[in-house]
Amino acid sequence: MRVALLGPVAWRTPPRHYGPWELVTGLIADGLTALGVDVTLFATLDSVTSAALDGVCPRGYAEDPSMDGRVWEALHVAHAFSRSSDFDIVHSHLDWLPLAFSQHCEAPLVTTIHGFGDRRIMPAYRRARSAFVAISDADRVPGLDYVATVHHGIDLDALPFCADGGDDLVVLGRIHPDKGTAAAIDIARQAGRRLFIAGIVQDERYFAEQVAPHVDGDRVVHLGSVGPQERAELLGRARALLHPIAFDEPFGLSVVESMATGTPVVAYARGSMPEVVDEGVTGFLVEDAEQAAAAVDRAGELDRRQVHQVARRRFASSRMVADYVDVYGKVLGERA
Amino acid sequence: MRVALLGPVAWRTPPRHYGPWELVTGLIADGLTALGVDVTLFATLDSVTSAALDGVCPRGYAEDPSMDGRVWEALHVAHAFSRSSDFDIVHSHLDWLPLAFSQHCEAPLVTTIHGFGDRRIMPAYRRARSAFVAISDADRVPGLDYVATVHHGIDLDALPFCADGGDDLVVLGRIHPDKGTAAAIDIARQAGRRLFIAGIVQDERYFAEQVAPHVDGDRVVHLGSVGPQERAELLGRARALLHPIAFDEPFGLSVVESMATGTPVVAYARGSMPEVVDEGVTGFLVEDAEQAAAAVDRAGELDRRQVHQVARRRFASSRMVADYVDVYGKVLGERA
Repeated sequence: MRVALLGPVAWRTPPRHYGPWELVTGLIADGLTALGVDVTLFATLDSVTSAALDGVCPRGYAEDPSMDGRVWEALHVAHAFSRSSDFDIVHSHLDWLPLAFSQHCEAPLVTTIHGFGDRRIMPAYRRARSAFVAISDADRVPGLDYVATVHHGIDLDALPFCADGGDDLVVLGRIHPDKGTAAAIDIARQAGRRLFIAGIVQDERYFAEQVAPHVDGDRVVHLGSVGPQERAELLGRARALLHPIAFDEPFGLSVVESMATGTPVVAYARGSMPEVVDEGVTGFLVEDAEQAAAAVDRAGELDRRQVHQVARRRFASSRMVADYVDVYGKVLGERA
Repeated sequence: MRVALLGPVAWRTPPRHYGPWELVTGLIADGLTALGVDVTLFATLDSVTSAALDGVCPRGYAEDPSMDGRVWEALHVAHAFSRSSDFDIVHSHLDWLPLAFSQHCEAPLVTTIHGFGDRRIMPAYRRARSAFVAISDADRVPGLDYVATVHHGIDLDALPFCADGGDDLVVLGRIHPDKGTAAAIDIARQAGRRLFIAGIVQDERYFAEQVAPHVDGDRVVHLGSVGPQERAELLGRARALLHPIAFDEPFGLSVVESMATGTPVVAYARGSMPEVVDEGVTGFLVEDAEQAAAAVDRAGELDRRQVHQVARRRFASSRMVADYVDVYGKVLGERA
């Protein structure tokens, strides 16, 4: 089976620090290749993959202000589709643009929907010739032709188990109202614990007004964006990951990454969280900051080894890759 | 010859008030059809044309806040290209997106470049499989495969000649620093004449800070956006059109429209202006507000009938359409 993986080009694959869609696409490319599948990854040309690499973007447009993302994304999609007849299936992770041009894709197209952003992009989905994969049941919207829900998997080897988590709390991800960074500061204060904040600043004003004033380098520490290794260490030595989201998060990679290191999660019960967190086993689902602070106290009672083992079983990259092999079979079988 | 005209979909074709790219595309569609050419215009589905009409957008995305322009433009281009093998030539007026996907166009593509906007879109031009038409020699950039320069034409019947122009000045076009609306206010003040301002507000802050404070309803009158008929009357009864641009304008439709009514133009000598304005015949090219005010005084000496006649000869829609027929012949001939 010849598979084209059409990845996003905002960041290199795998990303140097941030880039969850690129991260997942890269894991699928490597995982399929390890299974002996003939995979071509369409990504930035500085990407690192065990699959064959093709593309037109010299680097990620989010890493180079001289690049217009709209233009390079279009050139990238057009190039990949011009090679589409070389493949048995094209698997896109690249938002709505390939869907708008899906009639120019000469192989069956399957699209993993990493999130919808603005609902005004829906016409591209509703008119597309594509099968869809949801990344959580919570993220499904009515009326689209879903072939499966496939929860993301992660590279477990990069997130070693830490038997002892320490006393501090951590919040991870882009700093934006959606991610609840300010709520995490409030929860840590109520729980009387130190908070480490890691992630790119996506909303400058929110950061300046609601986050930065609380950063004192002692009780609230802002680390900026952290690379994969520092991320693993930061998660591993935490008592709990706080995930007080203010939106219906489609998946939540950082939650799973935390669990892989053995660190349980205290998350607001929105979006995919009830699917991803096993209540009382890998963490706690709460409704507000007060409940979250109480859950932080109880987090010490959870068995970190069991948290780690559940994450291994449910969210290994190999499980995700196997699920996608099933998806491809289903899509190709349905057409046969 | 079967021609596909790929028009923009920000506005209806022809536009109700603003939409210069749609206006020109519509004129070419109607002009070619009148010559017996088999034309399909790809535009919004509420467009009015004597050509065959096709498309997917129910209306212009700039006229409906619920539409995401990027998404609908992509759906529009993808649809037109899916029909490209039905045509001998595809003639695009739609910026860079069709160029990025030009390898999916199954007929020879020729693109009229209405302007470059941000230079970061250049990679789409440099990598495209398309012949290019410049709308002025001034707007050509080195290294692109230009087949011709075709100055825009206008619908002369909609812009009747006015023998007597009156005393007032007019500035027409989107209200934006590029267009020099504030400079026009200064020039009118120095010339001691009333100024009528017409056009959509494209830069709200510029309007609020540099235009609105001077609007008194007497010496400086803001009319908002005006439809085609009011536009013709406004131009016809003016002493001169002010065009004190602060950018290298690729063409300048309002300048030609003014000349068609017999009203001469006082323009800053930038971009296409030296090509479009015949110095001392259809107007004056100046460098600053002081020179412009002096030119306003001299504008009364120009022969309005001659201004009109030169405009008729140089900028009739029929001349533009004939030029494009030549372009198509050249593009198809070069391939044969």
